[in-house]
Amino acid sequence: MRLRDEIGKSAAALRIHGGRIDVAARLYPTAPRPWIDLSTGINPVPWPVPAIPLARYQRLPLAEEIARLTAAAAEAYGLPAHAGIVPVPGSEIALRLLPRVIGAGRVGILAPTYGSHAAAWHDAGAEVHEIAALPDPKSHELATLILVNPNNPDGRTIARAELTHFAQAWTATGRRLIVDEAFADVRADVSLLTLAEWPAGVVVLRSLGKFFGLAGLRVGFVIAGEPDISSWRRLLGDWPVSGPACEIATSALRDAAWIAATRARLSADRQRLDEVLGRAGLRALGGTDLFGLFEVAADIDLLDHFARAGILIRGYATEPRHCRFGLPADEAAWQRLEAACVSLSV
Amino acid sequence: MRLRDEIGKSAAALRIHGGRIDVAARLYPTAPRPWIDLSTGINPVPWPVPAIPLARYQRLPLAEEIARLTAAAAEAYGLPAHAGIVPVPGSEIALRLLPRVIGAGRVGILAPTYGSHAAAWHDAGAEVHEIAALPDPKSHELATLILVNPNNPDGRTIARAELTHFAQAWTATGRRLIVDEAFADVRADVSLLTLAEWPAGVVVLRSLGKFFGLAGLRVGFVIAGEPDISSWRRLLGDWPVSGPACEIATSALRDAAWIAATRARLSADRQRLDEVLGRAGLRALGGTDLFGLFEVAADIDLLDHFARAGILIRGYATEPRHCRFGLPADEAAWQRLEAACVSLSV
Repeated sequence: MRLRDEIGKSAAALRIHGGRIDVAARLYPTAPRPWIDLSTGINPVPWPVPAIPLARYQRLPLAEEIARLTAAAAEAYGLPAHAGIVPVPGSEIALRLLPRVIGAGRVGILAPTYGSHAAAWHDAGAEVHEIAALPDPKSHELATLILVNPNNPDGRTIARAELTHFAQAWTATGRRLIVDEAFADVRADVSLLTLAEWPAGVVVLRSLGKFFGLAGLRVGFVIAGEPDISSWRRLLGDWPVSGPACEIATSALRDAAWIAATRARLSADRQRLDEVLGRAGLRALGGTDLFGLFEVAADIDLLDHFARAGILIRGYATEPRHCRFGLPADEAAWQRLEAACVSLSV
Repeated sequence: MRLRDEIGKSAAALRIHGGRIDVAARLYPTAPRPWIDLSTGINPVPWPVPAIPLARYQRLPLAEEIARLTAAAAEAYGLPAHAGIVPVPGSEIALRLLPRVIGAGRVGILAPTYGSHAAAWHDAGAEVHEIAALPDPKSHELATLILVNPNNPDGRTIARAELTHFAQAWTATGRRLIVDEAFADVRADVSLLTLAEWPAGVVVLRSLGKFFGLAGLRVGFVIAGEPDISSWRRLLGDWPVSGPACEIATSALRDAAWIAATRARLSADRQRLDEVLGRAGLRALGGTDLFGLFEVAADIDLLDHFARAGILIRGYATEPRHCRFGLPADEAAWQRLEAACVSLSV
C-alpha cells in the first residue's frame, strides 16, 4: 500500500516538472538505458564548457567580472535605454523572489504556463488569478500581470508591438508587468529587450538554461528599470553568481557564431520532431524551436508508452492528452524516438 | 579632481570588504606581481576541485543529488534533532534574504562584525542596533539577534554551553537568534550544529567559502527548525545550487582526510603568521585559524605599506589601526610577506 502510494506520487511528479529522470528510472527499472530525456525544453547540445581554473572556485568573482557578464548579456539580448540588468543564480530563484521584491498583491498569470510563477506568488500570500488572455488595461482588478513569452508549454507568443502597447497602458497607473523570456533566445523578434526605450514598471527574466543548454549552471538575468534594479542588487549582494558560472556565462553569451549555428540547428530539429511525431499520429499544438506540444487520442498513455522505451517526455496533470517533447541530442536518440513511435502506431 | 575622487573611493573600498584585488591593482599599478591576497579569511589552499562532466552543466541537479549534498553537510557539520538543512547559493544571499523570510523588526547585531548583516536588515526596513555583548534575555527591546561565532574580524567566540543557555531563554518568547558560523569549521567546539536538540527559533548559516577555500563556488547552508526550513525550500525552489556546485560541495564535505589535514595545516600557519607579524611589531588582537586581527602604531598606514609590496590586507574604515591578515598560500608568498615586514620594522 505504501509502495503504491509512493509510485503514484512519483508518477504524478512527472506531470509537474520536466527533468526528473531519477524518478522515471525508479518507476521503470527495466526500461532501456541510457534514458533519453525529452521532458524539458533544454537544448540537448549545450554550449561547450571549457575546463575552469581552480582560482575561479577559490576567490570571489570580482566586480569587473560581474560587469563583463552583464555587458555580454546586454550585447547578446539587447538592452533598452533606462533599463538595467542583474545576474541571478538561476531565473527560478528570481521568479520566486519577485513577490518579495515588488510586493505581493492581486496577481494575474496568463495560463496555462510554467507552474512556479503561481507557486511563488501563492507562497508570498498573493491572490493569484489564472487568466486566458491579456486583460483590459482599463480594468483595475490586478496589481501585477505575469506572462511567459514565448509561452511554455504551448509556444503562444505575443507580438512585441502588441505587448509594448499593452505594457504602456498597463503600467501607466503603477501596475507591474513581469515577462518571463526563458525561451525568447529562439524568438528575438518578440523580446522586449530589443526595444529602444524601457517601458517603466516592466520586469523581464532571461535564462541561460534553455537555449544555451546550461540548466545545471543556474545563471539567469533580471532586466528592469529603477528602482527595481537597485533592489535586486542589494538583495543578492556583490556575488550573485559563482566565479565559474560568471566566466562560463560571459563566454557563452559572447559566442555569436555558436548562437547563430544553434538557432539554425534547433529550427531544423524542431521540424524533424514535427515530422516524426506527425507520422505517429500526434497532432502538433504549438511550441518553440526548443520543444513541441502535442495531442494524442484519449486512450493512449503517452508518458507511459515512451517511458517503457527509456524516453522521458513531459505530461500534464490537468491535460492528460497533452505531451511536451524536447529535442533529441544526437542521431542515436532520434532513432530510439523513431523506433518508439513505430510501436505507437502499430 | 575626478580621478582623485575615484582613487579615494577605491581606497575606501579596501576597508569595506576583502578580496578586491582588481581595485588594489588599479590603485597600485607599479606593485610587484602577482598580487598576494591576504585580505580575506579564505583558506588559500582550496579543496582540489576535479574536472566536471559537461552533463552537470547541462541538466538540472536531481532531487537525489541535492539530498546527497544535504546529507553530506549534516554528516560533516552535525545536525541536531528537529533541525533541517537547505543548500543556498552562497551564505551571502541567505543572510540578505533572512529579513524577508523571518520578517524585519527591531534587530540587534553583536558588533563589530561582518558588515553585510546590518546592510541586509537596513535594506529590508528593519531598525538595526549594534550592540557590544549578548543582551539580557529578560529585556524585550529586540525581536531578532544576529551574531557571528567565531566572530569576524576579531575571532571572539561564545562558548557553546553559554550560547545554548542564552538561545533557550531568548527564543522562549518567540524571538529569533541568527548565528553566522562561516568560520566555525575551525572551531567545531562552538558550533550549535553539534547539539543533540535544536533550540527552536534559531537559524544557523554555514559556508563552503572559508575553510574549504571555495568562495567562488557560492555554496552555503541554512540550518533551522520548522517552519523556517519549509519557507527556505519554497523560496529557493528545487535547484538552490548549480549542478557542478552540488557535486563539488558533496565531495568536499565527505573528504574527511582533507578536512583533518587542513585543520592541522591552518593551525600551524596561523601560528607562523603571529610569529612573523609579531617580529614586525604588530600586536595580535584575535582571530581564528583562518585569519588574524592585528594592531599597529597610529602613524603607520599598514594597508598602503603592504599594497606597495603587492600584498593586499584588509583595513577597517572605523578602526584605522586594525588590520586583518589571511594566510599566505605557499612558501613564496610567506617569503614576500616576511620581506615586506622587514621594511616595515626598519
